[in-house]
Amino acid sequence: MEKEPLLMLPGPVPMPERVRAAMMRQAINHRGKEFSGVYADCVRILKTAFGTENDLFVISGSGTASMEAAVGNFGRGRKIACLVNGKFGERLYKISQRYGSAIEIGSEWGTPLDLGKLEKALSEGAEMITLVHNETSAGIRNPAEKVGRLARKYDALFVMDGITSIAGDLVKSDAWGVDVAVVGSQKCLAAPAGLSALSVSNRAWERMTEPRPYYLDLAAYRKSASAKLMETPYTPAVPLFLALREACLILEEEGLPARIERHHRMAEAVRAAAKTWGLSLFPRIDSDHAYSNTATAIRLPEGVEDAEFRATIKNMGIEIAGGQDHLKGKIFRIGSMGAVGAPEILATLAAVQYALKKHGYNPKGCGVIAAAEVLG
Amino acid sequence: MEKEPLLMLPGPVPMPERVRAAMMRQAINHRGKEFSGVYADCVRILKTAFGTENDLFVISGSGTASMEAAVGNFGRGRKIACLVNGKFGERLYKISQRYGSAIEIGSEWGTPLDLGKLEKALSEGAEMITLVHNETSAGIRNPAEKVGRLARKYDALFVMDGITSIAGDLVKSDAWGVDVAVVGSQKCLAAPAGLSALSVSNRAWERMTEPRPYYLDLAAYRKSASAKLMETPYTPAVPLFLALREACLILEEEGLPARIERHHRMAEAVRAAAKTWGLSLFPRIDSDHAYSNTATAIRLPEGVEDAEFRATIKNMGIEIAGGQDHLKGKIFRIGSMGAVGAPEILATLAAVQYALKKHGYNPKGCGVIAAAEVLG
Repeated sequence: MEKEPLLMLPGPVPMPERVRAAMMRQAINHRGKEFSGVYADCVRILKTAFGTENDLFVISGSGTASMEAAVGNFGRGRKIACLVNGKFGERLYKISQRYGSAIEIGSEWGTPLDLGKLEKALSEGAEMITLVHNETSAGIRNPAEKVGRLARKYDALFVMDGITSIAGDLVKSDAWGVDVAVVGSQKCLAAPAGLSALSVSNRAWERMTEPRPYYLDLAAYRKSASAKLMETPYTPAVPLFLALREACLILEEEGLPARIERHHRMAEAVRAAAKTWGLSLFPRIDSDHAYSNTATAIRLPEGVEDAEFRATIKNMGIEIAGGQDHLKGKIFRIGSMGAVGAPEILATLAAVQYALKKHGYNPKGCGVIAAAEVLG
Repeated sequence: MEKEPLLMLPGPVPMPERVRAAMMRQAINHRGKEFSGVYADCVRILKTAFGTENDLFVISGSGTASMEAAVGNFGRGRKIACLVNGKFGERLYKISQRYGSAIEIGSEWGTPLDLGKLEKALSEGAEMITLVHNETSAGIRNPAEKVGRLARKYDALFVMDGITSIAGDLVKSDAWGVDVAVVGSQKCLAAPAGLSALSVSNRAWERMTEPRPYYLDLAAYRKSASAKLMETPYTPAVPLFLALREACLILEEEGLPARIERHHRMAEAVRAAAKTWGLSLFPRIDSDHAYSNTATAIRLPEGVEDAEFRATIKNMGIEIAGGQDHLKGKIFRIGSMGAVGAPEILATLAAVQYALKKHGYNPKGCGVIAAAEVLG
């Protein structure tokens, strides 16, 4: 069958036709009024999803590029406290090591972060904090608001990876005291992979460090964005901007509160299915930490072999994710981001339920119907 | 009129429909066989255009990103001799300043480089050379082969910006001793803006420096490209890769020699028109330097006002470029790159000829017919 599989991953996710069709048009000059308007539309709508009135830029590069921009523009030579409870927290720690003096404040993947240790690092002079708000590698949502409060208390800069939460879950960058927040295009926004966006607070601007990376030099982005025509300093990925604009317009039409509610409900449906099957969710949460509302990580039951299990699902035209790094073979992950809804969630859960049984685990009950009850 | 203008710029350039249509499909997983095949096709065909058997990677970022990758992976802390006779040479000098000890070996924009000064810098210990092969800001083609010979003589690394020459003009990276060469997607390849590719020689690999940028860390690109499935280390701009693959297939179908011959002929036609109009080409060339075969820079005659002149052409649905920075108002530039041919060149020259006359310059003869004689 030539049809693309249904991607129920923690990104990339299926794109609405309008978004895809926007890319097909002929090349336009990125130094001109039309592109400037496209860029401005993206920025305006993304600011609402970020919950910010700060400056915001779209970068032609993945979320990793924007995370590097955050650390590389504001963290050079600084003491950086990196909260790590999953793969992307670890990546931020690795990026921080290239620019400053990075301190890893680590927990087992998918378990609560130790904010006491963070406070200790801050009291000992850490000047920047990095946090992954929604850690898809482990399906956990971290306490961004509390971290922001600590950042303010100790006057540290707060860099937040909101790559998989912004535009799908509630994010209030300004109210939480986030200085730099980042989103990825191919996650909750349901746009193509290849772009990311980041917001920059005045506090951050006042603390720029040197030397900065060149392609990711945010001073250049600021200068080009505030020119008569709003532009990017270097050639942007034009078709992706055209697609992102459509994706942003769709977000605006749906309305952010409705979109967040839809994401919550989809994740709730996946969790209901897991519970009904008798499977446990991977993360260990507490009053500060929550299950991710955009990617659910479920423990693979004893005896079910990951590759075979997911191959059965893939043969039915659906891709879900396995575990990354040391979680390979131990968990599976279902993304519920972007433009998908009940049809995609129900089909996915049905395929998973079938595959569980086929590969040796007998689900305790019908998770698909439990999910339908949440979605209906 | 809703139709996009015909872009006769030194990039971006019009894309064939096949290339644009490739972007419209549904999202695919970039961790999978299909994407791996797309990436491999791009690399295989680009190697022929680069004239290299070295490793080659596609970067989700503009040509500037790949240039930074070259300097940032191999030039940290090094003495870098930067040849500058135009805007992009200057940019490479600025990038080099962020990573190493950069020495500018400058000439007036559009005039020959001083290879004697380069040799002096090399004899005084410069370990890396940066050169823009085809400097579109001034319409000049620089002597890459000679620079490569000097690089080998003094055992320096040779970084060459081939952003606007590769796939349109003759480039023999390996034979010329280029260690890192770079191409942009939206130039002679006629793919969308947003990607670039670079080749890396074994000599360069042996001389990697630290610390390296993160998103542009070529060690990570090498590792991901040599895995069982050829991948990128971070999320790639998938639709742009799909489009680039089509653009590469089109290049393969046309054949590199025919494509270069076509580019030469198009530029020759533009030069013939300028001569017939009685206008002078901007660059001052010599036996080492040549007129660019992908972008022609022409002096704007006395009394013709740049903005009005180009507005008249734009009103006819065609965009050509003005001068950049201090050349604003002094030259105009016609790109002849990628998928265009006689129809686009002739229409552009006719519009230019009309606009010259309208804005106060009486062309000496009919440049359009002179161009047709070259193209026919």
